[in-house]
Amino acid sequence: MNPYSKTIQCRAAICFAPNQPLFVKTIEVDPPKDNEVRVKIFANSICHSDINCCTGVYSFIKYPIIPGHEAAGIVESVGKNVSSVVVGDNVLLLVMSYCGLCLLCKNAKTNFCIKQRLVHTTMTDKTTRFKFNGQPVYHLFGISSLSEYTVVDEAQVIKIDQKARLDRVCLMACGFPTGYGAVVKVAKVEPLSMVGVWGLGAVGLAAIYGASKCGASIIIGVDIKEEKKEIAFKFGCTHFLNPTNSETTIKEAIKSITNGFGLDYALECVGSANVVEEAIECTSAYGSIVVVGSTRRDDSFSISPNVFLSGKKLTGALVGGYKSKLEIPNLVAEYVEGKIDIEPFFTGNVDLIRINEAFEELKNGNALRTVIKM
Amino acid sequence: MNPYSKTIQCRAAICFAPNQPLFVKTIEVDPPKDNEVRVKIFANSICHSDINCCTGVYSFIKYPIIPGHEAAGIVESVGKNVSSVVVGDNVLLLVMSYCGLCLLCKNAKTNFCIKQRLVHTTMTDKTTRFKFNGQPVYHLFGISSLSEYTVVDEAQVIKIDQKARLDRVCLMACGFPTGYGAVVKVAKVEPLSMVGVWGLGAVGLAAIYGASKCGASIIIGVDIKEEKKEIAFKFGCTHFLNPTNSETTIKEAIKSITNGFGLDYALECVGSANVVEEAIECTSAYGSIVVVGSTRRDDSFSISPNVFLSGKKLTGALVGGYKSKLEIPNLVAEYVEGKIDIEPFFTGNVDLIRINEAFEELKNGNALRTVIKM
Repeated sequence: MNPYSKTIQCRAAICFAPNQPLFVKTIEVDPPKDNEVRVKIFANSICHSDINCCTGVYSFIKYPIIPGHEAAGIVESVGKNVSSVVVGDNVLLLVMSYCGLCLLCKNAKTNFCIKQRLVHTTMTDKTTRFKFNGQPVYHLFGISSLSEYTVVDEAQVIKIDQKARLDRVCLMACGFPTGYGAVVKVAKVEPLSMVGVWGLGAVGLAAIYGASKCGASIIIGVDIKEEKKEIAFKFGCTHFLNPTNSETTIKEAIKSITNGFGLDYALECVGSANVVEEAIECTSAYGSIVVVGSTRRDDSFSISPNVFLSGKKLTGALVGGYKSKLEIPNLVAEYVEGKIDIEPFFTGNVDLIRINEAFEELKNGNALRTVIKM
Repeated sequence: MNPYSKTIQCRAAICFAPNQPLFVKTIEVDPPKDNEVRVKIFANSICHSDINCCTGVYSFIKYPIIPGHEAAGIVESVGKNVSSVVVGDNVLLLVMSYCGLCLLCKNAKTNFCIKQRLVHTTMTDKTTRFKFNGQPVYHLFGISSLSEYTVVDEAQVIKIDQKARLDRVCLMACGFPTGYGAVVKVAKVEPLSMVGVWGLGAVGLAAIYGASKCGASIIIGVDIKEEKKEIAFKFGCTHFLNPTNSETTIKEAIKSITNGFGLDYALECVGSANVVEEAIECTSAYGSIVVVGSTRRDDSFSISPNVFLSGKKLTGALVGGYKSKLEIPNLVAEYVEGKIDIEPFFTGNVDLIRINEAFEELKNGNALRTVIKM
């Protein structure tokens, strides 16, 4: 523990029980313990996983909890043994841990780490750093950034270039790499490929952006909201399909667009087993399907193993398969150099006190990313 | 049509209806048409797909049909436009077509070809080359090699080195590459990997042989027949598990053997949706499952898409994913050079007239490969 770092009182958005509005309350944030970093949060973008945290989709969640996990800020204090950031550094918080030392971090096939907090609601020592009225408040993904101050493990924070706008680069913590990496790093889409993306929220649009960068010749966006058509084309789609507004099935429409072959790559960014099933049916005999959206725990689909004998591939990825602390800095650098344009993902700003409105706008599909200014 | 090639009368094993014994009858074999080759069959090894053909597993089968598809022989006559083989060549017949010209053959991601006869019971011109009592007899996979003479498309035949024993190299037509290629070419098993193989027939043992060649550190064979244990170790297994004779579940046993991680690679060589499901559960968060066995058409399993978010991969392959005419010759060359040892796969020889006994021995798991001498 750092003897100069004291408990801080600040505001945070708390979810006290599933499917209830968030409440902005004054909480206490403990100093960082060994290998931990306390960060003053400047900007937070809201992601569907934050909604899932507050609606009971994730079975591991304990309440009360502070959501938020796409955030950037400034290091306020550090615990013992922290070497990669210092007080005053601009930092990005990372959903996926990367300690760089464990067997998983040393394995090129996974972006998991033994320090992973994905299905835990405490820090690695099984305690929390937040208190409200003297009682512990739980952490989401080891981040909980909808608080003016938060504590994260050093494995979940990277120093970023001062030139990176904090209220933009926060998207590099989760939403952008999740869709972009699924295409660029996991599917490895080649030039002239035929790609389909289901679900045109920020993650799906990042996938489309990635497919466009990879030189895909056909990019089909699929969404049940007709209003998504315009932004789909803006991000690089060559076709837009709306299953609720189509004379044929999505499968027939895609078969026709792809000259009978089916897609080379299908990205499922909705989080629905039925959609995964449809995506599998819409790929060619040797096509790849990447599951990007997480589904409710009881949502499954039925399939014959024979479907895969022709070489079809089904896989998935969290946060684009990137080893966070190792690879996200490259994306941030590309953003800073102007090689990646994330501006079109931002559709609004609100203060923390209006957090429930921001959640609503994301839920109903009107917002892509709303920045919560702390 | 070749004017010097006449209809031949010869013996063939015919299945007249599903789940009936085969009958060896005298049939008529037409001369090869354009782009076709008539082959005098010397040796035939029997594969589970031949049994499936005769037991109604494949919905596309029409009866009467001549099974057999792992065969080697000598070219008896050729149709017009045939350029890759000549009369008198020793040849291997191939389950997968490779015309080398179509969009699929030109695509590195698939070993399919538009000439594929996998779910057809005629030649590409939709007629048959066999007659019994004046009525057409159907073809299996475009091969139907349980006949003293058969006609195949040029896309399904390769010339082989005279040094290759015909009653051994026949295994290179299907069984050996199916298991070996699933490991070496599709899964691309790396040194020190942990591999599980379900189903220790010839295909599963070829997978084990491949895993051993790739330098896998742990190779677990899973089979319900305890008698398979000895041969499992002979082919390279480090562990053998029998689900009907185990105190723990296969998943628990594999978790324990792999130090809690699960398998890097799981090969399903049984042809059962339940087994595919088990194989998926037994792989690590980032493990690959390759479906090798085909299942009954109504056999499916239910799964949550979330299973794949950690990077798990599910795929499959027919005949090891090899582009047949392009890549099988390399395997044949390795066999001829003594780099691949297929001798241990052969467990018996019978004459065509005893074909039903050979089918029985394969069905009950006593035989790996029985050679039918024609």
